[in-house]
Amino acid sequence: MFSFEPIGYVHSPYKSTEEVPKGLGARQDAQGSLEILPQFELGLTDIEGFSHLIVLWVFDRLSRPDRLQLIGTPPADNRPHGVFATRSPRRPNPIGFTVVELVDRNSRSLDVRGVDMLEGTPILDLKPYLSNIPEDKLRRGWLAEAERRAHK
Amino acid sequence: MFSFEPIGYVHSPYKSTEEVPKGLGARQDAQGSLEILPQFELGLTDIEGFSHLIVLWVFDRLSRPDRLQLIGTPPADNRPHGVFATRSPRRPNPIGFTVVELVDRNSRSLDVRGVDMLEGTPILDLKPYLSNIPEDKLRRGWLAEAERRAHK
Repeated sequence: MFSFEPIGYVHSPYKSTEEVPKGLGARQDAQGSLEILPQFELGLTDIEGFSHLIVLWVFDRLSRPDRLQLIGTPPADNRPHGVFATRSPRRPNPIGFTVVELVDRNSRSLDVRGVDMLEGTPILDLKPYLSNIPEDKLRRGWLAEAERRAHK
Repeated sequence: MFSFEPIGYVHSPYKSTEEVPKGLGARQDAQGSLEILPQFELGLTDIEGFSHLIVLWVFDRLSRPDRLQLIGTPPADNRPHGVFATRSPRRPNPIGFTVVELVDRNSRSLDVRGVDMLEGTPILDLKPYLSNIPEDKLRRGWLAEAERRAHK
């Protein structure tokens, strides 16, 4: 068992899960900010040199019956898939992953684009986005298939 | 405070931190496997369609004095940077992030390339790698600068 404490909180235009764009072609360009706790501000040194950040956060508003679903149908498809092949919140450890664009830094508050978290979401970690996987080596499984079916 | 339990463990050729390639130009092509616990095997359904996976894991072998360092000099540079601008293990929440290439699946064991974790590392989550950031929009801060200085 491993225990983690928030390093800060997300400010987002979204107050409930229903407001977050989902499914095929959903655009994630909402602006928000990442407010880091004062005791960790020093850890943000030089972060403004990076255009994109990886944010690890907690799905902290799942209701009890939603907690775990090993197979489920994601918003981007009408067929079920395993939870580790999706970004579903109903995972064994409800940790969310979002890549955001860093727009500006004001001391311990980072203005970012691309938030898909709810207002007040606890942040576990920030990491610099360092590199891409070459496009010609990337296969995107059921998601690519669902996109092809949608464009028929 | 949020508590998480391992969903499985990494099998890696690396037994100690010193063996893991680090620094500028370090190649991460070690083969290993991700062994998922039996109770979560169903969650792997359709994962074999993806070429790359995001692995979230725990730096579980940090000695006490190494636990937190808000500013430090990473192996890829000779200048110090904030911990959130690096992949240092000495972060407030010692969660590691690795993108691996999925080579093969044998029921609940995933053969992967690109492990930089130690043998026996606890895995917190697996997610499909879905998309890249456009290369022309990516800025890589101090890392790009360190690379330029190294190539002079």
